[in-house]
Amino acid sequence: MTKFFTLITIFLMAPLCSIAIEEQLTEVSSSYINMDTLWVLLSAVLVFFMQAGFKTLETGLVKKEHRASVGSKNLLDLVAGIVGFFLVGFGFMFGTSYYGVIGIDTDLFLGNNFEHGTLGIPGVVFFLFQLVFAGTALTIVSGAMSGRTGLVPYFIGSMVTAIIIYPIFGHWAWGNLYYPNNGAWLADMGFMDFAGSTVVHTVGATVGIVGMIMVGPRLGRFDSKGNVLPVKVSDYSYSILGVMLLWIGWWGFNGGSTLSFSMDVFSIILNTNLAGAGACLSAFFFCYFFQDRSEVIEKMAGGALTGLVAITACCNVVSPINALIIGLIAGIIHNLGYDLILRVFKLDDPVGAIPVHGFGGIFGTLSVAIFGKEELLLLPRWEQLLIQGIGIEVCVVFTVIVSVIMFKIIKATYGLRVSPEQELKGMLLGRNMPEQFYNEETIHKV
Amino acid sequence: MTKFFTLITIFLMAPLCSIAIEEQLTEVSSSYINMDTLWVLLSAVLVFFMQAGFKTLETGLVKKEHRASVGSKNLLDLVAGIVGFFLVGFGFMFGTSYYGVIGIDTDLFLGNNFEHGTLGIPGVVFFLFQLVFAGTALTIVSGAMSGRTGLVPYFIGSMVTAIIIYPIFGHWAWGNLYYPNNGAWLADMGFMDFAGSTVVHTVGATVGIVGMIMVGPRLGRFDSKGNVLPVKVSDYSYSILGVMLLWIGWWGFNGGSTLSFSMDVFSIILNTNLAGAGACLSAFFFCYFFQDRSEVIEKMAGGALTGLVAITACCNVVSPINALIIGLIAGIIHNLGYDLILRVFKLDDPVGAIPVHGFGGIFGTLSVAIFGKEELLLLPRWEQLLIQGIGIEVCVVFTVIVSVIMFKIIKATYGLRVSPEQELKGMLLGRNMPEQFYNEETIHKV
Amino acid sequence: MTKFFTLITIFLMAPLCSIAIEEQLTEVSSSYINMDTLWVLLSAVLVFFMQAGFKTLETGLVKKEHRASVGSKNLLDLVAGIVGFFLVGFGFMFGTSYYGVIGIDTDLFLGNNFEHGTLGIPGVVFFLFQLVFAGTALTIVSGAMSGRTGLVPYFIGSMVTAIIIYPIFGHWAWGNLYYPNNGAWLADMGFMDFAGSTVVHTVGATVGIVGMIMVGPRLGRFDSKGNVLPVKVSDYSYSILGVMLLWIGWWGFNGGSTLSFSMDVFSIILNTNLAGAGACLSAFFFCYFFQDRSEVIEKMAGGALTGLVAITACCNVVSPINALIIGLIAGIIHNLGYDLILRVFKLDDPVGAIPVHGFGGIFGTLSVAIFGKEELLLLPRWEQLLIQGIGIEVCVVFTVIVSVIMFKIIKATYGLRVSPEQELKGMLLGRNMPEQFYNEETIHKV
Repeated sequence: MTKFFTLITIFLMAPLCSIAIEEQLTEVSSSYINMDTLWVLLSAVLVFFMQAGFKTLETGLVKKEHRASVGSKNLLDLVAGIVGFFLVGFGFMFGTSYYGVIGIDTDLFLGNNFEHGTLGIPGVVFFLFQLVFAGTALTIVSGAMSGRTGLVPYFIGSMVTAIIIYPIFGHWAWGNLYYPNNGAWLADMGFMDFAGSTVVHTVGATVGIVGMIMVGPRLGRFDSKGNVLPVKVSDYSYSILGVMLLWIGWWGFNGGSTLSFSMDVFSIILNTNLAGAGACLSAFFFCYFFQDRSEVIEKMAGGALTGLVAITACCNVVSPINALIIGLIAGIIHNLGYDLILRVFKLDDPVGAIPVHGFGGIFGTLSVAIFGKEELLLLPRWEQLLIQGIGIEVCVVFTVIVSVIMFKIIKATYGLRVSPEQELKGMLLGRNMPEQFYNEETIHKV
Repeated sequence: MTKFFTLITIFLMAPLCSIAIEEQLTEVSSSYINMDTLWVLLSAVLVFFMQAGFKTLETGLVKKEHRASVGSKNLLDLVAGIVGFFLVGFGFMFGTSYYGVIGIDTDLFLGNNFEHGTLGIPGVVFFLFQLVFAGTALTIVSGAMSGRTGLVPYFIGSMVTAIIIYPIFGHWAWGNLYYPNNGAWLADMGFMDFAGSTVVHTVGATVGIVGMIMVGPRLGRFDSKGNVLPVKVSDYSYSILGVMLLWIGWWGFNGGSTLSFSMDVFSIILNTNLAGAGACLSAFFFCYFFQDRSEVIEKMAGGALTGLVAITACCNVVSPINALIIGLIAGIIHNLGYDLILRVFKLDDPVGAIPVHGFGGIFGTLSVAIFGKEELLLLPRWEQLLIQGIGIEVCVVFTVIVSVIMFKIIKATYGLRVSPEQELKGMLLGRNMPEQFYNEETIHKV
Repeated sequence: MTKFFTLITIFLMAPLCSIAIEEQLTEVSSSYINMDTLWVLLSAVLVFFMQAGFKTLETGLVKKEHRASVGSKNLLDLVAGIVGFFLVGFGFMFGTSYYGVIGIDTDLFLGNNFEHGTLGIPGVVFFLFQLVFAGTALTIVSGAMSGRTGLVPYFIGSMVTAIIIYPIFGHWAWGNLYYPNNGAWLADMGFMDFAGSTVVHTVGATVGIVGMIMVGPRLGRFDSKGNVLPVKVSDYSYSILGVMLLWIGWWGFNGGSTLSFSMDVFSIILNTNLAGAGACLSAFFFCYFFQDRSEVIEKMAGGALTGLVAITACCNVVSPINALIIGLIAGIIHNLGYDLILRVFKLDDPVGAIPVHGFGGIFGTLSVAIFGKEELLLLPRWEQLLIQGIGIEVCVVFTVIVSVIMFKIIKATYGLRVSPEQELKGMLLGRNMPEQFYNEETIHKV
């Protein structure tokens, strides 16, 4: 009897103890106040630095009379992104899916209620992280269209991208991140884009190339026969600072996309750095020995970024050595792509946004299937490659259609381009302008 | 008897277990090595970035011959802040209160002993966080007085602000943060200033406006009839980088002011971003359509910062929608305030410090009562508004009195202003100067 | 009997409970996903910012025609560091020791296997942290040799430093960090260099001074009689931004070197800030009142950095007051060292790398023994001082020998210096160059 009681005691105590432990541990570790939350929040901070990085990169690569206006655009698209994504974009992207096409969810519009997600982190932290991603996609466009696009039409374009283009394609690829039951048709097919080579970078670059064609090249970029003329950039050194700030931001861009602080984070960051370094190296030496050496800084800076863009989709499924190889290839792709855009297609991409984010994004998305460890792919390698290709195509076709419509409407109504005088003398004419700007009176369109 | 023993066993075991749990959990979570500590430390890092942000903002907005000197001042006030706040400022602000007027505490002077606080984080981490706050208040002054104030008198002013002005007013509003029993008379009355719209920003701006009046306008800012003359700023684009760095820093400035890593942090950061974005937008469009369009970059940059300053006091008590509204209003306040200071009061505020930190700080402090959720206010709404107003008034009156005395003494002894020649040619004349500086021999006062 | 059983129960339960607790706590705290890992990873992010800091500092201090090339070098040495340190450098530095001379470890080469370390943090996080340290050592050289060294020879030098010089000396001083049983002969003798005053800064400065002598001074730095001629720096203000970015990075450089998130971190960061502030102050006032006042910005900026370098070795063993004193002394050492290098030794160190990293590193390493708390030293104070001196000597002798050989080979084969025309007109001549560069055709050596 005594033994029985004692045994009972033991068996009663054990769960009691463990409940007590559980409860206390719950407070310590299982609430939202955990390392995952802190890591994703800090990653959002790092991705926010990319805004400063893009601004600095682009400012250095435009002509000096356009420094101020490209900077203003970087700030404008940031605020357009914050407001537009908060009001409706986030809901369109991650809300309860309406036939797999778009999220419709009054909880998420206007930040009504961030508490119904099923993530291990608070909904509002997920929102902040996605917000800075949206901001990255938007700001890519500013560089591609810099030096001739007006501030207000640019702002309108950013706002439409933030609330229509980016969230809708994003819904197709990532729409099941917040509510796991959502139909995200590309993801459901097996499309893999870990941190957004396609969702962020290719979308941004596609809006950019459409805008670039619609607004036309800067005056003096090509002569009447289509030959490339020299352009004086304002400060290469400043652009290199931009590359470094962007690079740091990528630690969070890729590392935070796990949405948790897991062992994967560390190898992802390692891969990110190796790809960036490999790409910078190959772009530098390829340009130095085989291309126009006077463009070596554009090439090495853009090359590094192309490596970082390319690894973005696949940083969680490739080995470090393959990350380095992806980087080495990406650097060459950048350099060839740069010449292709400028010298073959005769497009005026002042900061090289298309080779970096477009070609880099596509190459990275395909690299998932090409270089990914087979056991980490969702499909057999060749099927995966096919689906990756389909995802890219869907992205490009959708983005081209919507952005052509968008820019056509802006062009037909407000106008897209500044006057030739503003373009040549600086977009913000007036009495308080920096020396490089003419001191004239009125501005009709900034 | 056996049962009795068994029961005893259970009741003895339970606390024993729980003590064991407690002890082990203590090591894990209750010691200072916890997420709260890490978050506050990282927030201090982010606030430190605001030093770089202010430097960059101000450098871009001054004339190019003053770039180097305004940069030097930003560095000087940082080191003045670190040394002065370490030696005595921190003790004055948070030490055991001497009749509610000032902290007197040998523990805190010279960093003697940071271990007696009752916070959940180590005293030294609290010190580091407060240190970078003090640095922020100090550096606001550098912009307001830039372009004509000597380096050494500026340094003296910074040191006095770091050890007298900032800590004493801070003691009244926040003096009970470190020792909860301290009498902090404004806080005890119910004055609410979460992250320092008044304590940091209004104090900084008030020292700035007094200094600005005492040192007088830059040569060439107004003509003899008091008309505003054009001033060429050195690089708008650089200032926009400053806005971005400051914005990032604000994630820590407001988010870290919880002094813990709690769920509040995330909505605070959301509110901060919405207010900044709203303010940038309203300032941009208000200037673009209703004010002198040539100032649109000053306005949008300063507008964004005004929104960030305004949300600082109230980010923990308002809803996201109200944060956006506070921002939208703050942008307009900035633009009108900017014109008021320059065109009505004829004060020369080269970087717009007064509209941003002064008007923004006051508006934000009042917004606690106007927009705060009633249940989160310490007093009924109208009483709260009254107390907020009293707090602001006390701040302005106290800061004006002390800084008038301070600047009068500096002016009468060392002198406050550089020679006209130094002002026009750059403050640091000598053989090694950048091109924009004349190569002359002697400097009497830098 | 019953009592006996009950007692048994108690004694059986206690360990059971505690095992249960242990197990659950293990999941919470003992895995790699802990606060130590997060802190070291974030410290690596902060140290990465130092790349941006060095770039910015150096760009501001060189002539404007060399802005772009010094920026390119900062990027090149970063990627050389990443690739070289990943492939073999890390293995040489931390791998299983081959007779105490060098690490030989196929696990660590090419990042084969980061899982056999015995640290409390994942091996890959340790790698990332060490990687950014290596990057710091490398980039010091870029400033010292700036303005006349070709890009490709500079890259080769960086690569050799990353895979030979830095790892081998590092192995002697820190080689037991990853595998505790490794023989690290300087560490075994009691040499203390907490975060690398010698391992990182003196190594970098020594490679720099050798390179500086081998490549010779810039044209126009000295006249034919050896008199110092004036040099126009490109933008002091930009350099001050660099100082601020570096300063922030130092929070991670020193704070992360604990390799854990312990109470030591906080006092280390406090000491770091006090030393930087003290040094900036003493350098500013010493120059202002006793030296050529036109160099006050170089002196205060370099002074601050010298304080930060000096505290690096000893930040974990000195009191805050001593940290301030170390800083005050370091500022004076910097100013005297600056004049010594330029005016006595007639060496052309465009950014003051030798006084900052060389003299600062040596002073800091000695300060361990001079200012360290006796109970925290490994040896009695005088013995410690002797060993510190030996460590510095070994470092300088070894680094001089290897880097003389390295630069001699580079000079004899590829060549080290650009043509006089490139030096005077900018290193990257070509049609796309910034205005300050001449628009000419061919470049023989960038």
